[in-house]
Amino acid sequence: MFPDASAERDDADYVLVGAPLDRSTTFQPGARFGPRRVRQFAKTFDDYDRRTDRRFSALGVHDAGDLDTFTDVTEYLDFLMGLLGDAADDGAIPLLVGGEHTVSVAGVRATEPDVFVCLDAHLDLRESYAGDEYSHATVTRHVLDIADRAVVLGARAGSEAEWERADRDDVTVVPPGDVADWEPDFDDGTSVYCSVDIDAADPGFAPGTGTMEPFGLEPRELRSVVRSVAPSTVGFDLVEVNDRDDGQAAALGAKLLREFVYTHAHARTDD
Amino acid sequence: MFPDASAERDDADYVLVGAPLDRSTTFQPGARFGPRRVRQFAKTFDDYDRRTDRRFSALGVHDAGDLDTFTDVTEYLDFLMGLLGDAADDGAIPLLVGGEHTVSVAGVRATEPDVFVCLDAHLDLRESYAGDEYSHATVTRHVLDIADRAVVLGARAGSEAEWERADRDDVTVVPPGDVADWEPDFDDGTSVYCSVDIDAADPGFAPGTGTMEPFGLEPRELRSVVRSVAPSTVGFDLVEVNDRDDGQAAALGAKLLREFVYTHAHARTDD
Amino acid sequence: MFPDASAERDDADYVLVGAPLDRSTTFQPGARFGPRRVRQFAKTFDDYDRRTDRRFSALGVHDAGDLDTFTDVTEYLDFLMGLLGDAADDGAIPLLVGGEHTVSVAGVRATEPDVFVCLDAHLDLRESYAGDEYSHATVTRHVLDIADRAVVLGARAGSEAEWERADRDDVTVVPPGDVADWEPDFDDGTSVYCSVDIDAADPGFAPGTGTMEPFGLEPRELRSVVRSVAPSTVGFDLVEVNDRDDGQAAALGAKLLREFVYTHAHARTDD
Amino acid sequence: MFPDASAERDDADYVLVGAPLDRSTTFQPGARFGPRRVRQFAKTFDDYDRRTDRRFSALGVHDAGDLDTFTDVTEYLDFLMGLLGDAADDGAIPLLVGGEHTVSVAGVRATEPDVFVCLDAHLDLRESYAGDEYSHATVTRHVLDIADRAVVLGARAGSEAEWERADRDDVTVVPPGDVADWEPDFDDGTSVYCSVDIDAADPGFAPGTGTMEPFGLEPRELRSVVRSVAPSTVGFDLVEVNDRDDGQAAALGAKLLREFVYTHAHARTDD
Amino acid sequence: MFPDASAERDDADYVLVGAPLDRSTTFQPGARFGPRRVRQFAKTFDDYDRRTDRRFSALGVHDAGDLDTFTDVTEYLDFLMGLLGDAADDGAIPLLVGGEHTVSVAGVRATEPDVFVCLDAHLDLRESYAGDEYSHATVTRHVLDIADRAVVLGARAGSEAEWERADRDDVTVVPPGDVADWEPDFDDGTSVYCSVDIDAADPGFAPGTGTMEPFGLEPRELRSVVRSVAPSTVGFDLVEVNDRDDGQAAALGAKLLREFVYTHAHARTDD
Amino acid sequence: MFPDASAERDDADYVLVGAPLDRSTTFQPGARFGPRRVRQFAKTFDDYDRRTDRRFSALGVHDAGDLDTFTDVTEYLDFLMGLLGDAADDGAIPLLVGGEHTVSVAGVRATEPDVFVCLDAHLDLRESYAGDEYSHATVTRHVLDIADRAVVLGARAGSEAEWERADRDDVTVVPPGDVADWEPDFDDGTSVYCSVDIDAADPGFAPGTGTMEPFGLEPRELRSVVRSVAPSTVGFDLVEVNDRDDGQAAALGAKLLREFVYTHAHARTDD
Ligand SMILES: [Mn+2]
Ligand SMILES: [Mn+2]
Ligand SMILES: [Mn+2]
Ligand SMILES: [Mn+2]
Ligand SMILES: [Mn+2]
Ligand SMILES: [Mn+2]
Ligand SMILES: [Mn+2]
Ligand SMILES: [Mn+2]
Ligand SMILES: [Mn+2]
Ligand SMILES: [Mn+2]
Ligand SMILES: [Mn+2]
Ligand SMILES: [Mn+2]
Repeated sequence: MFPDASAERDDADYVLVGAPLDRSTTFQPGARFGPRRVRQFAKTFDDYDRRTDRRFSALGVHDAGDLDTFTDVTEYLDFLMGLLGDAADDGAIPLLVGGEHTVSVAGVRATEPDVFVCLDAHLDLRESYAGDEYSHATVTRHVLDIADRAVVLGARAGSEAEWERADRDDVTVVPPGDVADWEPDFDDGTSVYCSVDIDAADPGFAPGTGTMEPFGLEPRELRSVVRSVAPSTVGFDLVEVNDRDDGQAAALGAKLLREFVYTHAHARTDD
Repeated sequence: MFPDASAERDDADYVLVGAPLDRSTTFQPGARFGPRRVRQFAKTFDDYDRRTDRRFSALGVHDAGDLDTFTDVTEYLDFLMGLLGDAADDGAIPLLVGGEHTVSVAGVRATEPDVFVCLDAHLDLRESYAGDEYSHATVTRHVLDIADRAVVLGARAGSEAEWERADRDDVTVVPPGDVADWEPDFDDGTSVYCSVDIDAADPGFAPGTGTMEPFGLEPRELRSVVRSVAPSTVGFDLVEVNDRDDGQAAALGAKLLREFVYTHAHARTDD
Repeated sequence: MFPDASAERDDADYVLVGAPLDRSTTFQPGARFGPRRVRQFAKTFDDYDRRTDRRFSALGVHDAGDLDTFTDVTEYLDFLMGLLGDAADDGAIPLLVGGEHTVSVAGVRATEPDVFVCLDAHLDLRESYAGDEYSHATVTRHVLDIADRAVVLGARAGSEAEWERADRDDVTVVPPGDVADWEPDFDDGTSVYCSVDIDAADPGFAPGTGTMEPFGLEPRELRSVVRSVAPSTVGFDLVEVNDRDDGQAAALGAKLLREFVYTHAHARTDD
Repeated sequence: MFPDASAERDDADYVLVGAPLDRSTTFQPGARFGPRRVRQFAKTFDDYDRRTDRRFSALGVHDAGDLDTFTDVTEYLDFLMGLLGDAADDGAIPLLVGGEHTVSVAGVRATEPDVFVCLDAHLDLRESYAGDEYSHATVTRHVLDIADRAVVLGARAGSEAEWERADRDDVTVVPPGDVADWEPDFDDGTSVYCSVDIDAADPGFAPGTGTMEPFGLEPRELRSVVRSVAPSTVGFDLVEVNDRDDGQAAALGAKLLREFVYTHAHARTDD
Repeated sequence: MFPDASAERDDADYVLVGAPLDRSTTFQPGARFGPRRVRQFAKTFDDYDRRTDRRFSALGVHDAGDLDTFTDVTEYLDFLMGLLGDAADDGAIPLLVGGEHTVSVAGVRATEPDVFVCLDAHLDLRESYAGDEYSHATVTRHVLDIADRAVVLGARAGSEAEWERADRDDVTVVPPGDVADWEPDFDDGTSVYCSVDIDAADPGFAPGTGTMEPFGLEPRELRSVVRSVAPSTVGFDLVEVNDRDDGQAAALGAKLLREFVYTHAHARTDD
Repeated sequence: MFPDASAERDDADYVLVGAPLDRSTTFQPGARFGPRRVRQFAKTFDDYDRRTDRRFSALGVHDAGDLDTFTDVTEYLDFLMGLLGDAADDGAIPLLVGGEHTVSVAGVRATEPDVFVCLDAHLDLRESYAGDEYSHATVTRHVLDIADRAVVLGARAGSEAEWERADRDDVTVVPPGDVADWEPDFDDGTSVYCSVDIDAADPGFAPGTGTMEPFGLEPRELRSVVRSVAPSTVGFDLVEVNDRDDGQAAALGAKLLREFVYTHAHARTDD
């Protein structure tokens, strides 16, 4: 269980689901261990958050465990979408912990946001990758079948075709150097899906990920984005953490997930 | 390049191909790094082998590099089969280095042996695994579409259905405790494909593998099997080595591959 | 959850409890991660066991999770004893997964066996260690307050005082070289508590433990002891596995625990 | 021996003592290896420091080795306090290398400073933790029995009760974002005890610690604090380094200790 | 092969040579694995670079493999110089991947630059180190036999004698805090050799190196230097990456090498 | 300090010297960390040995620390020989802990034994290796300039020239399979130098060594050799342990060193 995520499913305001998909990782495998690592390295955090004056254990987070993977990825995504959609239908915010980035497709399909806000080193705008239309490198493209717009923060890598695709109106790329100053410019009532690919962070802060990409974000830059979109967010995920470091990626990811919950809960109750 | 595998393709008596398939590994991923690890930890071995009085570098081994994987596994196996079949057609013995055990299907299809001799902790006799008919756990079954008979040495794990399948006449299971005394009982002229799943060894000797299974073989027991079948062998593979140990699995695997080549070459030239 | 340990508590024939005590480890800490590692590396094992023709998932094993530690060790042991005693009262066999060896004291107190059969590199017969009367090095001595007799198999280390204590009638020491031939000589109806300190194994097979002691047992020797006492056993534990290796210690320990359950269940239903 | 700490005890201006206490670490154990790691990773540093134009080997540092731990922590702290107090009585500055943060209690009792300046991710203001009144999470509270005031720099985690305690006049909390601009505001002659809990640094810079807390300090921010208080410092410690990374935490900690000595010695002789 | 470095030697504009020298590393050995690690962790990078609108695979980089080391270091450097000089004579830019920093001597001798621009934590200005006149700590001094001037960026460590040598006119030291603002002030037509000792980076970003030195550069600071000198550069190297981390040092180093090539090629074709 | 090696130099019957030479290791470097690892992993052993009824701390072992290496290896070996020779002159037995195997040359020169008994996977009979006449692969040849005879136990690798050299009368090779039955056949009064290259053990038991060679010895086979020659031994060494495993090689090596001392002391006092 994710620490302090002790709410019952029926009373939950947030439903955490692990999705250990680890199928299309091109480089360093191990994303399947992401949910386990994130739960483990979250144990060290205090229940209480000073800024929002809240206890995580009082925020109604339910840990629904992991959805084990099976071979057919589209079937898996459908199943996962169902699970997350049920949570959303019950008025809870899905908290998805990957696994590879591909799982965000299920999160977005389940929550149908207006905008996809994504922290990622990569554009993930391919049509297919290595012959696979559900590779982690195609996530943003699938997402754009649902959301009106995607904002990719911290992006610094992509193929020529991806960059061209990114030039279209429905995609905004915020390069690493501009993330610190970025603020959402969405209309009131815009719903957001927030996806944290941990490789957005500089590898010094999150080496345990499938495709390290240097010159990335500092931890507080990721936090600032999460904080700024949390109030409008209808679905959240953390992906691409693996077990090939000393816990840095998992600790940072787990902390961002908690930061999301504290901030979202704070905004909700302050309204 | 595998150390001392410096023959040209045209002159080669043995053609080594890396097949970094790492798709259906259920537990610990990393078989994709098998070819790299095996080449790396082979660097420490002397070119010369005292028992056979031969230099590896003089035995005509060509390292053809790795065949990079792509999404469609049946297509990949076809392609790999083609590559290995070409080598066989040219009179060379294919030496396949996985990657997951699934790649043996290509090796067997390319060489069409009478008997499949396999060192493995697992029966690998499933019809499918997690919905995947080309899982590593189905290898022996696919192989039996080609070979008349399979001998699985060191097997100690399988589902009930696999054990039942193993009771049929075309499968011989040699439990770990009987491997030391095993000798081939094949008719003269029987062609053998020899497959070494490194998890046949006890995890103490080969922890770097996808599914550790305790109570396994000692290194010299694996060697004894390789030596005894080498003279009749038309295709050889080493599979399921990953990078999650301190080199033990790769060193043992690389040594068994060399042992195969020395013994096979020795038998050939002594005939 | 320990894989396939899906029975409900009320229907359980075996109740598994993790006891991540990691307090008196003198050398390499990490026994607190033992329960997590054992559950994780057990994932690779097939549900079905050929020898006993049984599925683990059908044997009524309930995983009760971990009992988190607290500062006062005597209080912790009392609490743990209560938990295990409840299971025993309900007719279930406690399966305790440490944590340091100290937790066996709770297991023995909960089950009050006639004989304590222990696989261990160490005698653990100290009166206290570093001023601590509940150190892992004192386990066998505490146990002898309850059991009539202790058999320590694989023991090869102890202080002079421990060896002297071991010379008394209530202790039998079976050195590593004699374990292969050992058989229980207990009267019919003798109840046994079986404790597996993973450091009984040679460090080559179980490096992930607090105090490696070379010249130890082979995995099959440990298995043979577990099999031979399983039918008379009223309580079982596996201790001193930590996270400082590549999974060898956890895989071996998890396999021995499963072997215990298969054998015990087999004997029970064959009666 | 800490590199270049070759002064004799009698001539020493600084006395380094290792205190490998590793008892109350809640999450990742290994603080017991802190002194060894710190000495080891300090080997790479040049004896000479350009800024202060001094050789470490000429500054009179004596390495007194480690004080091995024993079970009763209050007794251990008394003993350690005695050792450090002797050094202080002889006019030397104690340099304490933990071990868990608890050891600072001994350092403060031995030197009786006016102010406790502490770099730490955590407030460490609990009354007890997990039933333990000498947990690492209670350090600052114990210290306030001696010192008039505590300044905790980089703090970003604590329980609600700790944050309330921190609101009182004798505690100043400097959040991570304000550390770069912090300067001591102490009266002339104020004596300072400087304690560096390495988890004050962001986990990217010091993953090898018991409780990683993201969004922490950069290395130069820690250095700036150490430099600014060094001239008034009567006792220094470095704590919570463990062996669960690739040396980052130990290298950073060792460098900060050296920076302290260079700066303190420089100030002393420039006066 | 370095990913996308698929040009033929004859058509190459850049010739990459691995030089796994690992002889004088004083602290953590493993620089011999630098070339292998750099090639491996470069696999994750996209062929295409947005800023320069170029594909790496189209820039004419040839990977000539490694030059295996032999005992006599001067002989080795001569041989390496010959190899790199041949590339330079053919109009290609040598890209040298160490190995220890000593190999830069060969690179500089082969290209005879006017200025040596070096990112390094250390001055490397010793006359000899541990009796070795070709230690990695003597590189800059040897280089100054060829180049008119050396600029060492990020330097923060050296002996007293080295700092004195650095005060002479032919050496410019840019301390870590000034690197962000540094710009080349060279005359038009000045030729530069650019050497990246990965320990210039803070250990948080590159722990896998022989002599970690805290308080170093951020990745973008290294990149900025590489970019600014690339157009004038006649030879480039990346040194002191080893295998003692989780890939951070290799990923950063490989990225800087690619950044160099993109920028240099961009400048060349824009002229 | 090696645990329990607390005798003063003047009273010592055994003088332990660390020789962290790590210069000619061809494959995996790290032998320089051998002395540190061996001391560290020896901490777990009990002072008391039952078989010989002796406490290690009472056997007069002095730990003289490490002799730091310098560039000129012949000079280093001379210096080391001096140090060990002084111990021998004072009637003490040198206990040398490498470092690479080359250091045995100093041990043999210091003690001038009649026979060199060596546990090693390799013959080490080269005249030079990679142009280096003091490579670890030349040790036995150098030794034969002093000793009349060499017995290499567990040898399974060597070049053709080495095997030919081994056929001469002054070399006896005992292959791994024959070591269990080997007994010394030396005349009374024959003096022995006993050298333990840890790679004699199978890599499963000692992965932390420079050149793993499968199909090696079991730990008790090494012990049996050490025990049988200990009474006649005038010098002992343990070499080729590095830090690239989880402590298995160091624990086994440290235990063999202790076994040597117990047995030698026992024989001496029983005479
Ligand atoms: Mn992504
Ligand atoms: Mn990404
Ligand atoms: Mn298999
Ligand atoms: Mn298998
Ligand atoms: Mn025990
Ligand atoms: Mn034990
Ligand atoms: Mn603290
Ligand atoms: Mn802290
Ligand atoms: Mn350098
Ligand atoms: Mn440097
Ligand atoms: Mn040797
Ligand atoms: Mn050897």
